[in-house]
Amino acid sequence: MLVYGRNVAREYLKNDKKIEKIILQDNFNDNEIISLIEKRNFRVEYRSKREIDHLADGVHQGIILSIPDYHYANLGDILERNLNFVVVLDHIEDPHNLGAIIRTCEAAGVDAIILPKDRQVSINATVMKTSVGTAEQIPIVRVVNLAQTIEKLKKEGFWIVGTALEDSIDYRNIDYTSKIGLVIGNEGKGISPIIRNSCDFVAKIPMYGKTNSLNASVAAGIMIYEVVRNRK
Amino acid sequence: MLVYGRNVAREYLKNDKKIEKIILQDNFNDNEIISLIEKRNFRVEYRSKREIDHLADGVHQGIILSIPDYHYANLGDILERNLNFVVVLDHIEDPHNLGAIIRTCEAAGVDAIILPKDRQVSINATVMKTSVGTAEQIPIVRVVNLAQTIEKLKKEGFWIVGTALEDSIDYRNIDYTSKIGLVIGNEGKGISPIIRNSCDFVAKIPMYGKTNSLNASVAAGIMIYEVVRNRK
Repeated sequence: MLVYGRNVAREYLKNDKKIEKIILQDNFNDNEIISLIEKRNFRVEYRSKREIDHLADGVHQGIILSIPDYHYANLGDILERNLNFVVVLDHIEDPHNLGAIIRTCEAAGVDAIILPKDRQVSINATVMKTSVGTAEQIPIVRVVNLAQTIEKLKKEGFWIVGTALEDSIDYRNIDYTSKIGLVIGNEGKGISPIIRNSCDFVAKIPMYGKTNSLNASVAAGIMIYEVVRNRK
Repeated sequence: MLVYGRNVAREYLKNDKKIEKIILQDNFNDNEIISLIEKRNFRVEYRSKREIDHLADGVHQGIILSIPDYHYANLGDILERNLNFVVVLDHIEDPHNLGAIIRTCEAAGVDAIILPKDRQVSINATVMKTSVGTAEQIPIVRVVNLAQTIEKLKKEGFWIVGTALEDSIDYRNIDYTSKIGLVIGNEGKGISPIIRNSCDFVAKIPMYGKTNSLNASVAAGIMIYEVVRNRK
Protein backbone atom coordinates (compact mmCIF):
# COMPACT_ATOMS: atom_id res chain seq x y z
CA MET A 1 0.00 0.00 0.00
CA LEU A 2 1.22 3.51 -0.82
CA VAL A 3 0.77 6.28 1.73
CA TYR A 4 1.78 9.86 1.18
CA GLY A 5 2.18 13.28 2.72
CA ARG A 6 4.69 14.69 5.20
CA ASN A 7 2.69 14.09 8.38
CA VAL A 8 2.23 10.40 7.72
CA ALA A 9 5.87 10.09 6.58
CA ARG A 10 7.13 11.65 9.82
CA GLU A 11 4.84 9.35 11.79
CA TYR A 12 6.26 6.25 10.05
CA LEU A 13 9.87 7.35 10.19
CA LYS A 14 9.85 8.46 13.82
CA ASN A 15 8.14 5.32 15.08
CA ASP A 16 10.37 2.84 13.26
CA LYS A 17 7.44 1.37 11.37
CA LYS A 18 8.02 -0.98 8.51
CA ILE A 19 8.61 0.90 5.25
CA GLU A 20 9.26 -1.00 2.03
CA LYS A 21 10.31 1.90 -0.13
CA ILE A 22 10.47 5.70 -0.08
CA ILE A 23 9.83 7.80 -3.18
CA LEU A 24 10.67 11.50 -3.10
CA GLN A 25 10.01 14.25 -5.57
CA ASP A 26 13.22 15.55 -7.24
CA ASN A 27 13.24 18.82 -5.34
CA PHE A 28 12.02 17.47 -1.98
CA ASN A 29 13.56 19.66 0.71
CA ASP A 30 11.95 18.97 4.09
CA ASN A 31 15.13 18.76 6.16
CA GLU A 32 13.52 17.10 9.15
CA ILE A 33 12.20 14.24 7.01
CA ILE A 34 15.44 13.94 5.05
CA SER A 35 17.42 13.59 8.26
CA LEU A 36 14.93 11.00 9.58
CA ILE A 37 15.42 9.02 6.36
CA GLU A 38 19.20 9.29 6.66
CA LYS A 39 19.10 8.12 10.27
CA ARG A 40 17.36 4.90 9.24
CA ASN A 41 19.68 4.55 6.26
CA PHE A 42 16.89 4.05 3.73
CA ARG A 43 17.45 3.93 0.04
CA VAL A 44 15.31 6.48 -1.71
CA GLU A 45 13.99 6.71 -5.26
CA TYR A 46 13.71 10.17 -6.74
CA ARG A 47 10.98 10.83 -9.29
CA SER A 48 9.56 13.84 -11.11
CA LYS A 49 6.48 15.66 -9.80
CA ARG A 50 4.54 14.28 -12.77
CA GLU A 51 5.36 10.67 -11.87
CA ILE A 52 4.54 11.22 -8.19
CA ASP A 53 1.24 12.92 -9.05
CA HIS A 54 0.42 9.81 -11.03
CA LEU A 55 1.31 7.39 -8.20
CA ALA A 56 -0.45 9.28 -5.40
CA ASP A 57 -4.19 9.67 -5.40
CA GLY A 58 -4.22 12.97 -3.50
CA VAL A 59 -1.99 15.66 -1.97
CA HIS A 60 1.41 13.99 -1.55
CA GLN A 61 3.65 16.94 -0.61
CA GLY A 62 6.50 15.29 -2.54
CA ILE A 63 6.78 12.08 -0.52
CA ILE A 64 5.35 8.59 -0.95
CA LEU A 65 6.03 5.58 1.27
CA SER A 66 5.32 2.02 0.26
CA ILE A 67 4.26 0.16 3.41
CA PRO A 68 2.97 -3.36 4.07
CA ASP A 69 -0.80 -3.80 3.61
CA TYR A 70 -2.82 -3.08 6.72
CA HIS A 71 -3.03 -5.96 9.17
CA TYR A 72 -6.39 -6.19 10.93
CA ALA A 73 -6.62 -7.56 14.46
CA ASN A 74 -8.57 -10.68 15.40
CA LEU A 75 -11.81 -10.38 17.39
CA GLY A 76 -11.05 -13.38 19.58
CA ASP A 77 -7.61 -12.01 20.51
CA ILE A 78 -9.12 -8.63 21.27
CA LEU A 79 -11.84 -10.02 23.54
CA GLU A 80 -9.25 -11.98 25.56
CA ARG A 81 -7.63 -8.73 26.65
CA ASN A 82 -9.43 -6.83 29.32
CA LEU A 83 -10.99 -4.14 27.16
CA ASN A 84 -13.07 -1.31 28.54
CA PHE A 85 -13.95 0.92 25.65
CA VAL A 86 -14.44 -0.11 22.03
CA VAL A 87 -15.80 1.93 19.14
CA VAL A 88 -18.00 0.12 16.61
CA LEU A 89 -18.40 1.70 13.16
CA ASP A 90 -21.71 0.93 11.50
CA HIS A 91 -20.72 1.39 7.83
CA ILE A 92 -18.65 4.56 7.61
CA GLU A 93 -18.20 5.33 3.90
CA ASP A 94 -15.91 8.37 3.76
CA PRO A 95 -12.18 7.62 4.16
CA HIS A 96 -11.58 11.09 5.68
CA ASN A 97 -14.18 10.35 8.34
CA LEU A 98 -12.71 6.93 9.06
CA GLY A 99 -9.18 8.36 9.31
CA ALA A 100 -10.29 11.15 11.65
CA ILE A 101 -12.26 8.70 13.83
CA ILE A 102 -9.25 6.37 14.13
CA ARG A 103 -7.08 9.35 15.09
CA THR A 104 -9.58 10.41 17.77
CA CYS A 105 -9.83 6.85 19.11
CA GLU A 106 -6.05 6.58 19.41
CA ALA A 107 -5.76 9.97 21.11
CA ALA A 108 -8.60 9.24 23.53
CA GLY A 109 -7.23 5.85 24.56
CA VAL A 110 -10.00 3.73 23.01
CA ASP A 111 -8.98 0.05 23.27
CA ALA A 112 -10.12 -1.20 19.86
CA ILE A 113 -12.18 -0.32 16.79
CA ILE A 114 -14.60 -2.78 15.18
CA LEU A 115 -15.91 -2.33 11.65
CA PRO A 116 -17.84 -4.48 9.18
CA LYS A 117 -16.32 -6.04 6.06
CA ASP A 118 -19.04 -4.88 3.68
CA ARG A 119 -20.36 -1.42 2.79
CA GLN A 120 -17.59 0.16 4.81
CA VAL A 121 -14.44 1.90 3.59
CA SER A 122 -11.36 -0.21 4.40
CA ILE A 123 -8.00 0.99 5.71
CA ASN A 124 -6.61 2.47 2.49
CA ALA A 125 -4.01 5.15 1.76
CA THR A 126 -6.45 8.05 2.31
CA VAL A 127 -7.51 6.60 5.65
CA MET A 128 -3.87 6.12 6.65
CA LYS A 129 -3.06 9.69 5.73
CA THR A 130 -6.07 11.19 7.51
CA SER A 131 -5.38 9.05 10.57
CA VAL A 132 -1.78 10.42 10.56
CA GLY A 133 -0.58 6.82 10.85
CA THR A 134 -2.52 6.12 14.07
CA ALA A 135 -4.25 3.15 12.39
CA GLU A 136 -1.02 1.28 13.22
CA GLN A 137 -1.34 2.08 16.92
CA ILE A 138 -4.81 0.82 17.76
CA PRO A 139 -6.21 -2.66 17.04
CA ILE A 140 -8.83 -2.56 14.29
CA VAL A 141 -11.03 -5.64 13.82
CA ARG A 142 -13.02 -6.35 10.68
CA VAL A 143 -16.07 -8.56 11.18
CA VAL A 144 -18.58 -10.19 8.84
CA ASN A 145 -21.63 -9.70 11.04
CA LEU A 146 -21.71 -6.54 13.12
CA ALA A 147 -24.94 -7.43 14.93
CA GLN A 148 -23.52 -10.79 16.11
CA THR A 149 -20.32 -9.08 17.22
CA ILE A 150 -22.33 -6.63 19.28
CA GLU A 151 -24.12 -9.56 20.95
CA LYS A 152 -20.69 -10.99 21.81
CA LEU A 153 -19.65 -7.67 23.32
CA LYS A 154 -22.83 -7.64 25.42
CA LYS A 155 -22.03 -11.13 26.73
CA GLU A 156 -18.62 -9.79 27.73
CA GLY A 157 -20.33 -7.16 29.85
CA PHE A 158 -20.26 -4.21 27.45
CA TRP A 159 -23.02 -1.63 27.46
CA ILE A 160 -23.81 -0.62 23.91
CA VAL A 161 -24.40 3.07 23.26
CA GLY A 162 -25.63 4.27 19.87
CA THR A 163 -26.40 7.75 18.60
CA ALA A 164 -29.54 8.97 16.88
CA LEU A 165 -31.66 12.11 16.85
CA GLU A 166 -35.01 10.45 17.56
CA ASP A 167 -36.13 8.46 20.57
CA SER A 168 -32.83 9.15 22.27
CA ILE A 169 -31.56 10.75 25.45
CA ASP A 170 -29.13 13.63 25.95
CA TYR A 171 -25.60 12.22 25.61
CA ARG A 172 -24.60 13.95 28.85
CA ASN A 173 -27.15 11.98 30.85
CA ILE A 174 -25.71 8.52 30.31
CA ASP A 175 -23.44 6.72 32.75
CA TYR A 176 -20.36 5.61 30.83
CA THR A 177 -18.41 4.14 33.73
CA SER A 178 -18.95 0.46 32.79
CA LYS A 179 -17.46 -1.25 29.74
CA ILE A 180 -18.69 0.73 26.75
CA GLY A 181 -19.22 -0.21 23.10
CA LEU A 182 -19.92 3.08 21.31
CA VAL A 183 -21.62 2.69 17.92
CA ILE A 184 -21.07 5.40 15.28
CA GLY A 185 -23.57 5.27 12.41
CA ASN A 186 -23.26 5.76 8.67
CA GLU A 187 -22.85 9.35 7.40
CA GLY A 188 -26.23 9.48 5.69
CA LYS A 189 -28.36 6.74 7.20
CA GLY A 190 -27.13 6.69 10.79
CA ILE A 191 -27.21 3.44 12.74
CA SER A 192 -28.96 0.53 11.02
CA PRO A 193 -32.23 -0.65 12.65
CA ILE A 194 -30.89 -4.06 13.73
CA ILE A 195 -27.92 -2.45 15.47
CA ARG A 196 -30.10 0.19 17.04
CA ASN A 197 -32.26 -2.53 18.56
CA SER A 198 -29.17 -3.97 20.25
CA CYS A 199 -28.27 -0.67 21.90
CA ASP A 200 -28.69 -0.35 25.67
CA PHE A 201 -28.78 3.43 25.28
CA VAL A 202 -29.33 5.68 22.31
CA ALA A 203 -27.72 9.08 22.81
CA LYS A 204 -28.47 12.41 21.19
CA ILE A 205 -26.12 15.37 20.86
CA PRO A 206 -28.39 18.41 21.25
CA MET A 207 -28.55 20.71 18.23
CA TYR A 208 -29.86 24.24 17.99
CA GLY A 209 -29.55 25.08 14.29
CA LYS A 210 -31.65 24.39 11.23
CA THR A 211 -29.70 21.47 9.85
CA ASN A 212 -29.59 19.12 12.79
CA SER A 213 -26.69 16.96 11.83
CA LEU A 214 -22.97 16.80 12.47
CA ASN A 215 -20.15 15.36 10.42
CA ALA A 216 -19.74 11.69 11.47
CA SER A 217 -16.17 12.15 12.72
CA VAL A 218 -17.12 15.27 14.70
CA ALA A 219 -20.08 13.49 16.32
CA ALA A 220 -17.80 10.53 17.07
CA GLY A 221 -15.24 12.89 18.66
CA ILE A 222 -17.83 14.52 20.91
CA MET A 223 -19.22 11.12 21.99
CA ILE A 224 -15.79 9.53 22.52
CA TYR A 225 -14.64 12.42 24.71
CA GLU A 226 -17.91 12.24 26.65
CA VAL A 227 -17.10 8.62 27.51
CA VAL A 228 -13.52 9.63 28.42
CA ARG A 229 -14.85 12.44 30.65
CA ASN A 230 -16.73 9.88 32.73
CA ARG A 231 -13.75 7.60 33.20
CA LYS A 232 -10.32 9.21 33.29
CA MET B 1 -20.04 28.83 -7.77
CA LEU B 2 -20.83 25.17 -8.48
CA VAL B 3 -21.79 22.90 -5.57
CA TYR B 4 -22.53 19.22 -5.93
CA GLY B 5 -23.75 16.11 -4.20
CA ARG B 6 -27.21 15.00 -3.05
CA ASN B 7 -26.99 16.23 0.54
CA VAL B 8 -26.14 19.78 -0.42
CA ALA B 9 -28.74 19.70 -3.22
CA ARG B 10 -31.47 18.64 -0.79
CA GLU B 11 -30.35 21.37 1.61
CA TYR B 12 -30.62 24.04 -1.10
CA LEU B 13 -33.89 22.79 -2.53
CA LYS B 14 -35.67 22.31 0.78
CA ASN B 15 -34.68 25.70 2.16
CA ASP B 16 -35.64 27.71 -0.92
CA LYS B 17 -32.12 28.99 -1.38
CA LYS B 18 -31.14 30.80 -4.52
CA ILE B 19 -30.15 28.37 -7.27
CA GLU B 20 -29.07 29.67 -10.68
CA LYS B 21 -29.05 26.37 -12.54
CA ILE B 22 -29.36 22.63 -11.91
CA ILE B 23 -27.37 20.10 -13.90
CA LEU B 24 -28.28 16.41 -13.61
CA GLN B 25 -26.61 13.32 -14.94
CA ASP B 26 -28.64 11.58 -17.69
CA ASN B 27 -29.70 8.68 -15.50
CA PHE B 28 -30.22 10.65 -12.26
CA ASN B 29 -32.95 8.88 -10.33
CA ASP B 30 -33.16 10.22 -6.77
CA ASN B 31 -36.93 10.62 -6.57
CA GLU B 32 -36.91 12.85 -3.50
CA ILE B 33 -34.62 15.35 -5.19
CA ILE B 34 -36.49 15.15 -8.50
CA SER B 35 -39.77 15.93 -6.76
CA LEU B 36 -38.13 18.83 -4.87
CA ILE B 37 -36.93 20.20 -8.22
CA GLU B 38 -40.39 19.79 -9.74
CA LYS B 39 -42.00 21.56 -6.78
CA ARG B 40 -39.85 24.64 -7.37
CA ASN B 41 -40.44 24.37 -11.10
CA PHE B 42 -36.76 24.57 -12.02
CA ARG B 43 -35.43 24.04 -15.48
CA VAL B 44 -32.83 21.35 -15.51
CA GLU B 45 -29.95 20.60 -17.86
CA TYR B 46 -29.12 16.94 -18.43
CA ARG B 47 -25.51 16.00 -19.17
CA SER B 48 -23.48 12.80 -19.55
CA LYS B 49 -21.51 11.40 -16.61
CA ARG B 50 -18.33 12.36 -18.44
CA GLU B 51 -19.34 16.00 -18.71
CA ILE B 52 -20.43 16.15 -15.06
CA ASP B 53 -17.20 14.51 -13.90
CA HIS B 54 -15.40 17.28 -15.74
CA LEU B 55 -17.47 20.09 -14.16
CA ALA B 56 -17.37 18.79 -10.59
CA ASP B 57 -14.10 18.60 -8.72
CA GLY B 58 -15.11 15.67 -6.50
CA VAL B 59 -17.90 13.18 -5.79
CA HIS B 60 -21.02 14.73 -7.37
CA GLN B 61 -23.55 11.85 -7.13
CA GLY B 62 -25.04 13.00 -10.44
CA ILE B 63 -26.15 16.49 -9.42
CA ILE B 64 -24.57 19.93 -9.70
CA LEU B 65 -26.13 23.23 -8.63
CA SER B 66 -24.89 26.59 -9.77
CA ILE B 67 -25.44 29.01 -6.88
CA PRO B 68 -24.50 32.67 -6.29
CA ASP B 69 -20.98 33.22 -4.92
CA TYR B 70 -20.75 33.16 -1.15
CA HIS B 71 -21.61 36.42 0.57
CA TYR B 72 -19.55 37.11 3.68
CA ALA B 73 -21.01 39.05 6.60
CA ASN B 74 -19.63 42.37 7.85
CA LEU B 75 -17.79 42.54 11.18
CA GLY B 76 -19.41 45.85 12.19
CA ASP B 77 -22.91 44.49 11.54
CA ILE B 78 -22.09 41.36 13.48
CA LEU B 79 -20.78 43.21 16.52
CA GLU B 80 -23.94 45.34 16.68
CA ARG B 81 -26.02 42.25 17.36
CA ASN B 82 -25.81 40.89 20.87
CA LEU B 83 -23.50 37.96 20.18
CA ASN B 84 -22.47 35.50 22.85
CA PHE B 85 -20.39 32.85 21.17
CA VAL B 86 -18.16 33.30 18.13
CA VAL B 87 -15.66 30.88 16.65
CA VAL B 88 -12.44 32.35 15.26
CA LEU B 89 -10.48 30.25 12.75
CA ASP B 90 -6.74 30.90 12.78
CA HIS B 91 -5.84 29.79 9.23
CA ILE B 92 -7.68 26.53 8.56
CA GLU B 93 -6.28 25.16 5.29
CA ASP B 94 -8.34 22.03 4.56
CA PRO B 95 -11.76 22.66 2.97
CA HIS B 96 -13.16 19.47 4.55
CA ASN B 97 -12.17 20.75 7.97
CA LEU B 98 -13.65 24.18 7.30
CA GLY B 99 -16.91 22.65 6.05
CA ALA B 100 -17.20 20.33 9.05
CA ILE B 101 -16.44 23.20 11.47
CA ILE B 102 -19.10 25.41 9.87
CA ARG B 103 -21.59 22.53 10.15
CA THR B 104 -20.77 22.04 13.82
CA CYS B 105 -21.06 25.78 14.52
CA GLU B 106 -24.47 25.92 12.90
CA ALA B 107 -25.70 22.85 14.77
CA ALA B 108 -24.37 24.08 18.12
CA GLY B 109 -25.93 27.53 17.76
CA VAL B 110 -22.66 29.49 17.44
CA ASP B 111 -23.54 33.12 16.57
CA ALA B 112 -20.83 33.83 13.99
CA ILE B 113 -17.57 32.56 12.49
CA ILE B 114 -14.58 34.84 11.89
CA LEU B 115 -11.76 33.88 9.57
CA PRO B 116 -8.77 35.66 8.03
CA LYS B 117 -8.50 36.64 4.36
CA ASP B 118 -5.01 35.22 3.82
CA ARG B 119 -3.58 31.72 4.27
CA GLN B 120 -7.07 30.36 4.93
CA VAL B 121 -9.28 28.32 2.63
CA SER B 122 -12.26 30.38 1.48
CA ILE B 123 -15.88 29.25 1.15
CA ASN B 124 -15.59 27.20 -2.04
CA ALA B 125 -17.60 24.30 -3.46
CA THR B 126 -15.86 21.64 -1.33
CA VAL B 127 -16.51 23.69 1.82
CA MET B 128 -20.16 24.16 0.82
CA LYS B 129 -20.55 20.43 0.23
CA THR B 130 -18.86 19.40 3.48
CA SER B 131 -20.86 22.00 5.40
CA VAL B 132 -24.05 20.50 3.87
CA GLY B 133 -25.10 24.02 2.94
CA THR B 134 -24.94 25.33 6.53
CA ALA B 135 -22.50 28.05 5.43
CA GLU B 136 -25.64 29.87 4.27
CA GLN B 137 -27.20 29.71 7.71
CA ILE B 138 -24.54 31.26 9.92
CA PRO B 139 -22.82 34.64 9.43
CA ILE B 140 -19.18 34.20 8.35
CA VAL B 141 -16.93 37.25 8.51
CA ARG B 142 -13.62 37.53 6.67
CA VAL B 143 -11.13 39.96 8.22
CA VAL B 144 -7.72 41.29 7.17
CA ASN B 145 -6.17 41.29 10.63
CA LEU B 146 -7.23 38.52 12.96
CA ALA B 147 -5.26 39.84 15.95
CA GLN B 148 -6.92 43.27 15.72
CA THR B 149 -10.33 41.63 15.39
CA ILE B 150 -9.69 39.64 18.54
CA GLU B 151 -8.82 42.87 20.36
CA LYS B 152 -12.16 44.28 19.19
CA LEU B 153 -13.94 41.21 20.53
CA LYS B 154 -12.19 41.65 23.88
CA LYS B 155 -13.38 45.28 24.04
CA GLU B 156 -16.90 43.97 23.46
CA GLY B 157 -16.55 41.79 26.55
CA PHE B 158 -15.56 38.49 24.94
CA TRP B 159 -13.26 36.07 26.72
CA ILE B 160 -10.88 34.54 24.21
CA VAL B 161 -10.20 30.81 24.55
CA GLY B 162 -7.54 29.13 22.43
CA THR B 163 -6.39 25.53 22.29
CA ALA B 164 -2.85 24.18 22.54
CA LEU B 165 -1.13 21.18 24.04
CA GLU B 166 1.52 23.06 26.00
CA ASP B 167 1.11 25.58 28.83
CA SER B 168 -2.62 25.04 28.76
CA ILE B 169 -5.33 23.91 31.16
CA ASP B 170 -7.82 21.05 30.87
CA TYR B 171 -10.68 22.23 28.64
CA ARG B 172 -13.19 21.00 31.21
CA ASN B 173 -11.85 23.39 33.87
CA ILE B 174 -12.71 26.64 32.11
CA ASP B 175 -15.81 28.71 32.82
CA TYR B 176 -17.51 29.35 29.49
CA THR B 177 -20.56 31.21 30.81
CA SER B 178 -19.48 34.70 29.66
CA LYS B 179 -19.24 35.83 26.02
CA ILE B 180 -16.78 33.45 24.39
CA GLY B 181 -14.52 33.79 21.36
CA LEU B 182 -13.16 30.28 20.70
CA VAL B 183 -10.02 30.20 18.55
CA ILE B 184 -9.32 27.08 16.46
CA GLY B 185 -5.75 26.85 15.19
CA ASN B 186 -4.21 25.71 11.91
CA GLU B 187 -4.09 21.96 11.21
CA GLY B 188 -0.31 21.70 11.42
CA LYS B 189 0.91 24.73 13.31
CA GLY B 190 -1.91 25.34 15.75
CA ILE B 191 -2.66 28.86 16.95
CA SER B 192 -0.17 31.52 15.84
CA PRO B 193 1.93 33.11 18.64
CA ILE B 194 0.40 36.58 18.35
CA ILE B 195 -3.13 35.15 18.66
CA ARG B 196 -2.09 32.90 21.51
CA ASN B 197 -0.83 35.93 23.43
CA SER B 198 -4.30 37.49 23.13
CA CYS B 199 -6.01 34.47 24.65
CA ASP B 200 -7.50 34.77 28.14
CA PHE B 201 -7.38 30.99 28.48
CA VAL B 202 -5.56 28.30 26.56
CA ALA B 203 -7.35 24.96 26.76
CA LYS B 204 -6.02 21.45 26.27
CA ILE B 205 -8.05 18.37 25.33
CA PRO B 206 -6.38 15.53 27.26
CA MET B 207 -4.88 12.76 25.12
CA TYR B 208 -3.76 9.30 26.11
CA GLY B 209 -2.26 7.85 22.92
CA LYS B 210 1.08 8.11 21.22
CA THR B 211 0.16 10.66 18.62
CA ASN B 212 -1.26 13.48 20.70
CA SER B 213 -3.21 15.32 18.11
CA LEU B 214 -6.76 15.45 16.83
CA ASN B 215 -8.16 16.42 13.46
CA ALA B 216 -8.88 20.18 13.56
CA SER B 217 -12.62 19.77 12.98
CA VAL B 218 -12.89 17.06 15.65
CA ALA B 219 -11.02 19.22 18.20
CA ALA B 220 -13.25 22.15 17.24
CA GLY B 221 -16.36 19.98 17.75
CA ILE B 222 -15.26 18.86 21.21
CA MET B 223 -14.44 22.44 22.27
CA ILE B 224 -17.62 23.94 20.78
CA TYR B 225 -19.80 21.41 22.58
CA GLU B 226 -17.90 22.05 25.81
CA VAL B 227 -18.86 25.72 25.54
CA VAL B 228 -22.46 24.72 24.76
CA ARG B 229 -22.51 22.37 27.79
CA ASN B 230 -21.78 25.30 30.07
CA ARG B 231 -24.49 27.51 28.65
CA LYS B 232 -27.60 25.77 27.33
